[in-house]
Amino acid sequence: MRFDEGYSGKVFIMSRPDFDEAKAVIYGMPMDWTVSFRPGSRFGPNRIREASLGLEEYSPYMDRHLEEVNYFDAGDIPLPFGNPKRSLDTIQDYLKQLLAKGKFPLGLGGEHLVSWPVIQAVYEKYPDMALIHMDAHADLREEYEGEPLSHSTPVRKACQLIGPENVYSFGIRSGMREEFAYAKDSGMYMARYEVAKPLREILPKLSGKKVYVTIDIDVLDPAYAPGTGTAEAGGISSKELLEAIQLIANSNVHVVGADLVEVAPIYDPTEQTVIAASKFIREILLGWVK
Amino acid sequence: MRFDEGYSGKVFIMSRPDFDEAKAVIYGMPMDWTVSFRPGSRFGPNRIREASLGLEEYSPYMDRHLEEVNYFDAGDIPLPFGNPKRSLDTIQDYLKQLLAKGKFPLGLGGEHLVSWPVIQAVYEKYPDMALIHMDAHADLREEYEGEPLSHSTPVRKACQLIGPENVYSFGIRSGMREEFAYAKDSGMYMARYEVAKPLREILPKLSGKKVYVTIDIDVLDPAYAPGTGTAEAGGISSKELLEAIQLIANSNVHVVGADLVEVAPIYDPTEQTVIAASKFIREILLGWVK
Amino acid sequence: MRFDEGYSGKVFIMSRPDFDEAKAVIYGMPMDWTVSFRPGSRFGPNRIREASLGLEEYSPYMDRHLEEVNYFDAGDIPLPFGNPKRSLDTIQDYLKQLLAKGKFPLGLGGEHLVSWPVIQAVYEKYPDMALIHMDAHADLREEYEGEPLSHSTPVRKACQLIGPENVYSFGIRSGMREEFAYAKDSGMYMARYEVAKPLREILPKLSGKKVYVTIDIDVLDPAYAPGTGTAEAGGISSKELLEAIQLIANSNVHVVGADLVEVAPIYDPTEQTVIAASKFIREILLGWVK
Amino acid sequence: MRFDEGYSGKVFIMSRPDFDEAKAVIYGMPMDWTVSFRPGSRFGPNRIREASLGLEEYSPYMDRHLEEVNYFDAGDIPLPFGNPKRSLDTIQDYLKQLLAKGKFPLGLGGEHLVSWPVIQAVYEKYPDMALIHMDAHADLREEYEGEPLSHSTPVRKACQLIGPENVYSFGIRSGMREEFAYAKDSGMYMARYEVAKPLREILPKLSGKKVYVTIDIDVLDPAYAPGTGTAEAGGISSKELLEAIQLIANSNVHVVGADLVEVAPIYDPTEQTVIAASKFIREILLGWVK
Amino acid sequence: MRFDEGYSGKVFIMSRPDFDEAKAVIYGMPMDWTVSFRPGSRFGPNRIREASLGLEEYSPYMDRHLEEVNYFDAGDIPLPFGNPKRSLDTIQDYLKQLLAKGKFPLGLGGEHLVSWPVIQAVYEKYPDMALIHMDAHADLREEYEGEPLSHSTPVRKACQLIGPENVYSFGIRSGMREEFAYAKDSGMYMARYEVAKPLREILPKLSGKKVYVTIDIDVLDPAYAPGTGTAEAGGISSKELLEAIQLIANSNVHVVGADLVEVAPIYDPTEQTVIAASKFIREILLGWVK
Amino acid sequence: MRFDEGYSGKVFIMSRPDFDEAKAVIYGMPMDWTVSFRPGSRFGPNRIREASLGLEEYSPYMDRHLEEVNYFDAGDIPLPFGNPKRSLDTIQDYLKQLLAKGKFPLGLGGEHLVSWPVIQAVYEKYPDMALIHMDAHADLREEYEGEPLSHSTPVRKACQLIGPENVYSFGIRSGMREEFAYAKDSGMYMARYEVAKPLREILPKLSGKKVYVTIDIDVLDPAYAPGTGTAEAGGISSKELLEAIQLIANSNVHVVGADLVEVAPIYDPTEQTVIAASKFIREILLGWVK
Repeated sequence: MRFDEGYSGKVFIMSRPDFDEAKAVIYGMPMDWTVSFRPGSRFGPNRIREASLGLEEYSPYMDRHLEEVNYFDAGDIPLPFGNPKRSLDTIQDYLKQLLAKGKFPLGLGGEHLVSWPVIQAVYEKYPDMALIHMDAHADLREEYEGEPLSHSTPVRKACQLIGPENVYSFGIRSGMREEFAYAKDSGMYMARYEVAKPLREILPKLSGKKVYVTIDIDVLDPAYAPGTGTAEAGGISSKELLEAIQLIANSNVHVVGADLVEVAPIYDPTEQTVIAASKFIREILLGWVK
Repeated sequence: MRFDEGYSGKVFIMSRPDFDEAKAVIYGMPMDWTVSFRPGSRFGPNRIREASLGLEEYSPYMDRHLEEVNYFDAGDIPLPFGNPKRSLDTIQDYLKQLLAKGKFPLGLGGEHLVSWPVIQAVYEKYPDMALIHMDAHADLREEYEGEPLSHSTPVRKACQLIGPENVYSFGIRSGMREEFAYAKDSGMYMARYEVAKPLREILPKLSGKKVYVTIDIDVLDPAYAPGTGTAEAGGISSKELLEAIQLIANSNVHVVGADLVEVAPIYDPTEQTVIAASKFIREILLGWVK
Repeated sequence: MRFDEGYSGKVFIMSRPDFDEAKAVIYGMPMDWTVSFRPGSRFGPNRIREASLGLEEYSPYMDRHLEEVNYFDAGDIPLPFGNPKRSLDTIQDYLKQLLAKGKFPLGLGGEHLVSWPVIQAVYEKYPDMALIHMDAHADLREEYEGEPLSHSTPVRKACQLIGPENVYSFGIRSGMREEFAYAKDSGMYMARYEVAKPLREILPKLSGKKVYVTIDIDVLDPAYAPGTGTAEAGGISSKELLEAIQLIANSNVHVVGADLVEVAPIYDPTEQTVIAASKFIREILLGWVK
Repeated sequence: MRFDEGYSGKVFIMSRPDFDEAKAVIYGMPMDWTVSFRPGSRFGPNRIREASLGLEEYSPYMDRHLEEVNYFDAGDIPLPFGNPKRSLDTIQDYLKQLLAKGKFPLGLGGEHLVSWPVIQAVYEKYPDMALIHMDAHADLREEYEGEPLSHSTPVRKACQLIGPENVYSFGIRSGMREEFAYAKDSGMYMARYEVAKPLREILPKLSGKKVYVTIDIDVLDPAYAPGTGTAEAGGISSKELLEAIQLIANSNVHVVGADLVEVAPIYDPTEQTVIAASKFIREILLGWVK
Repeated sequence: MRFDEGYSGKVFIMSRPDFDEAKAVIYGMPMDWTVSFRPGSRFGPNRIREASLGLEEYSPYMDRHLEEVNYFDAGDIPLPFGNPKRSLDTIQDYLKQLLAKGKFPLGLGGEHLVSWPVIQAVYEKYPDMALIHMDAHADLREEYEGEPLSHSTPVRKACQLIGPENVYSFGIRSGMREEFAYAKDSGMYMARYEVAKPLREILPKLSGKKVYVTIDIDVLDPAYAPGTGTAEAGGISSKELLEAIQLIANSNVHVVGADLVEVAPIYDPTEQTVIAASKFIREILLGWVK
Repeated sequence: MRFDEGYSGKVFIMSRPDFDEAKAVIYGMPMDWTVSFRPGSRFGPNRIREASLGLEEYSPYMDRHLEEVNYFDAGDIPLPFGNPKRSLDTIQDYLKQLLAKGKFPLGLGGEHLVSWPVIQAVYEKYPDMALIHMDAHADLREEYEGEPLSHSTPVRKACQLIGPENVYSFGIRSGMREEFAYAKDSGMYMARYEVAKPLREILPKLSGKKVYVTIDIDVLDPAYAPGTGTAEAGGISSKELLEAIQLIANSNVHVVGADLVEVAPIYDPTEQTVIAASKFIREILLGWVK
C-alpha cells in the first residue's frame, strides 16, 4: 500500500497514476476574478472531477472505453488569487511545458479568459492552428470597462494572434453590436444560435487541420447547464453538444487540445451542470485523444 | 449629484430617468392572492429587474440596442394585499392613465389575473384590438371554486369582452374539459402544445391589427422556467419563445402593449427563470416598441 | 364524517376510496438500497402523490378525465430496510395478489430493481408478455460489483425470463460495452437516444400483445428531471415522453401494467421532477387503463 | 394482506390502524390562504409526517416509547381552497366530533388561523380552559387590512372568547404597538423573547387547569426553523422548545389538545424544519397525552 | 398619481418620498470585487430591501414605530464594476455630500472594504470619532496578496486614520497571527467571540462620544446568517446581535452613522439572512437615529 | 515544475507534500451504505477539503498556525461500494499500517460505522485506550434490523472491545430505550444533551490516558450542521463544539487519533456544514497533534 496514491475521488475517473506515460493531461484553471455578473467558476474543476465518479466508463457514442485512453489528471494549476496577469502567465508557462512533453492538454475552467494563455501556448507549437469556439457569447470585446484582460475578450485576442480566418465560433447568441460587426467584417466564421448543423458544414473545410477547441458551458441553454455565471436563454441542448463532440471525433480534423470552461456549481443545486460537464469531458477523452 | 436618482439595480437595465419622454413604461403587478397551487409570483417583478443587470444591452436577434428605445421603469403598482377586487381596480386605473399619456404598457406579473384589468383598459382605448395569449393553461374558466376573480379566468373574460374571434391562444396544454370545449365552440383560436409554428400561420391574418400580447412564463417547459407556480411539463423551449417574439416583431401586427406573468422566483434557486424572463423583456422592448 | 378516510393530500389525486371496485391500483416501492451513486428514490412515491395535487384532472392529450378511470392508491408497500432480497420477495407477493384480483398495477419507485419482481409476477400471469423499457441506462448487467441484485440488472433478468426477443428498450445512452454487445447479440430490441420515433416503428409489430411498460425517469434529460440519482445528459424532453405515452395509448398493444421509477426528490429543489412525474402517471391512468 | 392499509410513509410514524381505540388523533389543516408574506404552510402536515420516518420511537427526554401511546393519524381535513370562512367551519365541525368522541386533538398546520376554530370547539367542551401560546408574533390583531379572518388575529379572538386572563403567550417578539398595548392592558399574560424561563414561573399557577397549547414554529429562531412564512430573527433554540414541552409534561396542567402550525417546507431545502417539527410532535405525544 | 414615484418593493419599507426632509439616508454599496472566497455580496442591498416588506413596522425592543423616524432610501451608489479604487472614491464623495447635508448615513454592503471610504468621510466631519466594529474577522491586514485595497484591511486602515485607541472590535474569531498581535500591541480594543457582554462594559467608557458602527453580518454564526461569503463557525446568535443594537441605543454614545455589510444572498436559499438583516436595519433606524 | 504535484484544492489546506515526514495523516472514508434515513455522507470528505480553502491558517483559539503542524492529506481510502464487510476490512488494514508508521490518524467520514475498524486498529496499538464520543445518537445498538454492521452500532462494539468503563459519550439525545439502559447499566459514561460542561468534569479523570476521539457532526444542532443524514433537533452549537475541542487540547489526555463523520453535503445548499467541519479539522490539527 502506498499512502501517497489514494487520490480516488479527487481526480477524474480512471485517471492513470503516471504522468510520463499519459497521452492527455487534465488540469484545472480555477480562476474567476474578471467575471462581471455571477462569479463562482473557480469551484468548477473540482466539482467536475467529483461528478465523474458517477460516469459509466464506456461510451456508446464513441464505442470506446476510458481504459483505451491513457490520461493523467494533474490537479489544478496553482493561481495567484485576484491577479489576472500573473494567473495567465502561470497558465501559459504550464501549457508550454505540457506541450513540450507532447501531451494533449484538456483544461477545466474557470472563467473563459483562461483559454487565452492556453491558445498562445498552443499557437507557439502549432502556428497553423485553427480555433473552434462554442459559446453563448461572442467574447470578441477588445476590453471590458477599460480592462483588456476580461472574460469577454479571449476570442478577439485569438483572432488577432492566429488570424480571424482561422477562428470558428458556434452557438453565439449574445454580444455587443461591435462584436457582431467584427465577426462579420474580420473574416472569421460565426454561426449564431446553432452548433451541430453549421459544424457539419464547416468540418470538411478544416480537414487535416490542427484545431484547438474551447467550449464555454453556457453554449447550452440554462435548462441544461444552470450552473454558470452568465446564463443566456435560447441555447442548445446537451444532445446537440454531444453530437457536436461526436462530429469532430468522426471528422478529419486533428484536435491538439481542448478546454471546457465557466462551470460555476453554486448556481445549480441539482448538480446537473457538473454531471453533464463530466460526460462531455469523457466524450472528449474518448473521441479527440487519438 | 442627486440623491433621489440612484436607483441602479432596482429598475430594468437602461431604464431612462424621465417618465414623460418615455415611449414605453415598465411596471410591476406584484399580486398572487388568487393562486391555488404554489404562490410566490408577487416577488417576480423585482427579481426580473435584478436579473436584467446581467443582460447584454444589444440583441443580435433584433439587431437593436436598448439605447434605441426610450422606456421608463415605473416600479411596482402599490396593490392592497389580499384584496383581488381592489387590486384589479387599481391596475385598471393605472393603465388608463398610462394609455391616456400614449405609453406602451409593459407589465411584469404577478399572477395571470392581473392581465384582465390591463386588457380592459387597452380595449377601452383600442376597441378593435386582438389578443395574443401564450400559456400552458387555457385560463378559460368562468370561475374557480365559485370565485370569478381567479387566475384561471382572464382569457375567458377577455373573450367575453373583445369577442372570442379576437383571441388567439398558443402553447396550451392544460385545462378543464369545458375550457377546451369552449375553445372549440366559441370561435376563438387555440393552438395546442406549440407556439412558433401556429403563430407563423396566424400572424399574416392579423396584419395591421392592434394586438395586446400576454405571456405566461409557464408556456415554457419547467426545464426552462422552473420558477413558476403551476409548472406544467411538456412545454416549449426558450428558443421557441424567442422565435415567437421575433416573429411578432417582424410581422405587420401593431403591438399596443404586453405583459409577462407568473414568474415565481422562490421555486428556482438556479435563477434561470428570472434570467430568461429579463431577456424576453429586452426582446419585447427592442422588437415591439416602435 | 369518517375519520379514517381523510387521506386527501396523501394519495394520488382523485384516488377512489374503494379498493375492490378499482380497475387500477397505484402503489409505491420506496427502496433505494442498491443504488451506487446518489441514493434518495425511496422518497419518490410520496412526493409524486403530493405533486399530483397541482394537476388538472382532465387531459387534452387523451381527451379524458380522471373520473373516467376507477383507481385506488394503496400507499407504499412496506419494505424491510437495507434488505434487497426480502424487499423483492415482498413486492412479488404483493403483485401476485394484485394481479390475482385482476387489477392493473401502476408502481411508483424507488430504484429500478423494484421492477424485477413486478415483471416476474406479471410474467407468471401473462407468459406471452412483452416488455417496453424506457431508460437512459441499458440495465443489462449480470451483476454489479459481484452483486446480482443491483439496480443495473433488471432488464437483463427480464431478458432471461421472458426471452430477449420480447424486450424493447428505448432512449438508452449509457451502459457497459458488454451491455451494448448483449443488446446486439441477444435478439432484444434497443433504440439509442430516442424514444418516440423508434416506438412509432415498433408498436405496430406489438399489435395485440400484452405489454408491461417500465419507465425510468432518467430517460428524460436532466434538464427535465434533475431529481434522479444517476442523471445522464443527452436525454429526451418531457414532450417526447408525453408523446410516447400517447403513442402507446393509441396503439393496439394491450398494456397490462406499468411503473415509473428512480424519482429522487432531494436533488431537485425546483420540484419540477415530481411535478412532471405526476403528470406522466395521470397520462398513464388515462391512456393505458382501459 | 389488506391493500387498503399500506399507508406506511404517509401517516405519522407508529400511528395505530384503528381510530376508535386511539386516545389521540393527529390531523392536518393544510390552509394558508390568509398569509401575507410567504405562503406555503399548506404543505406542512404532509412533510412533517414524511420526516417522522427518521425519528427514533423512544424519547430519552420523556423516557417513554411511542408504543405506549395509542394515537391515530387521520390525514388532512379536506378544506375548500381559498375560502377561509368555510375552511374554518369545516375545522370546527371536525373538532367537535373529535372531542365528542373523547379524543386528544393534535393538529398540524397550516397557517395559525386554523387554531381559532379548534379553540372554539375546545372551549365549548372545556369552558374553563386556558390557552398556552408560543409564537414569535403576538397574533393579537383585530383584523388585517380590514379582514377579521387573518393569520394575525387568532390569539385576540381567543382572548375575547375565553377571557384574556386565561391566555398565556410566550416568546413574542413581533407585533403592532396596539397588540403590545392590548397585551399589557387586557390582563392576558405575555412573555417576550423567552419561553422556558417564564413558563417555569407560570405553570404552577395553572396547576390542575385544562389547557390547550398552540405552538407556532416561528417561535424558534429562523436558524432552527427556516421553513416558515414569516421568519423572525431573535427567537429561541430547539433545545429551549424541547425544554418547554418537557416542563409542561412534568407539570400539573391537564393538556386537552395541541397544535403545531406555520411549517412551510419550501423555504427550507435542508429539511431541518420538518425534521425538528416531527420531533416536537413525538414529544407532545409522549409527554402530553396521558 | 405620479408614475415616477411607485417604487414600492424597491426601497426599504416605509422609506419617505422626500430626501431633503429625511434625517437618515439608506444607500447600497453593491461591491464585492476584492473578495477571495465566495463573492456575491453585490446582491445584498437589494435583497435586504425586498425582505423588509415582511417586517412589522413597530419594534417591541425599542417601543418605537418606523413612522417616528424620517428616512429616505436613496438606492444603490452606482459603482464602476471591477475597479476598487474608483468605487471607493465614488463612495467617499457620496458620503461627504450626505454628511454635508446633515444626514445620518446607513449603508448596506457589499464587501467590508466599502466601510473604509465611509469612515474616511465620517472622520473628516467628526475628527474625534470612535469606531465600533462587530465582525468574525479582525480585518486588520495591511494588504492581501500584495493588494492594500482588500476586504481584509478596512479596520487596520481605520486604526491608522483615527488612532487604534479609538477602535473597538467585537466578536472576532478569525484572522492572521499578525492581526491578533497588532490588536494586542496597538492599543485598540478587541473582544473575542462575544459581543453583548464586552459591549456592556465598554459603552460607559464611550459615553458622549461620536461613534460610527460597522457590522459584518458574519459576526453571527453561519446558523443565523448562512448567506455570507466567508462564513465562520462559532459566532453569536441573532438574539445577541439584537441585544447589542439595543445596548448601544440605550447608551449615551452618539451614533453618527452605521453600515451592515457582507450579506451574500446566493448562499442562503432559505432567505433567513436577508430577513434577519432587514430586521437589524429596522432596529438601527429605530434605536440609533435620534 | 512537477505536473504530478499540483493538487491544490483537492487536499486539506496546507497539507504537506511528503507522507514520510508527516506527523498526522488525513484520510477520507467515503462510505454510507448502511445508512437508514438520508444517505450522502460518502461525499463528505471531498467537500470538507474543498471548504478548507476558505479557512484562515492561524487559529486564535489555539494561538497556533497550520505551518506548525506537519500533516499529509492522503486522499480517500478506496472502498468497495455497497460491501460493508470488505470496506471495514480495508479501513482496518489501512489504519494498522498508518499506526505502524507512527502517524496520528485523522479520518473524515462517511457514516459512523467507519469508526469501528479504526478503533479496532487503535486498540491493537494502545490496549489501554479510552474513547471519547460526541454524537446526537447513542450508537449502542447490537444490530439494526438484524444487521450487526450498521451505523447505529459502533459505540456498542467499542464498549465490547475496550470495556464500557473506557467509553465516554457526550451530547447524546437519541436512541432506543435499550441503548439508554445499556449506557446506565454497563458502566460506560454518557452525558445527555451537553458536551462542554460534562467534558470539563471528565477530562481530569482521563489525565495521562491515551484517547481516541470520534465526533459525529450531528452532535451539533441541525441549525449549525443541516448537512447530515440523521439530523436531530436539540443539539449543541458550533461554539460549544469548538470549546470542547479546546478543552481536550488544554487537558492532559494524550489524543492518539480522531475522526469527524456523517457530513452529508447534499442536504445543505448553504455549505455551512462543510465550512464548519473544515474549521473543526483545523482546530483538531492545531490542538491535538503534538
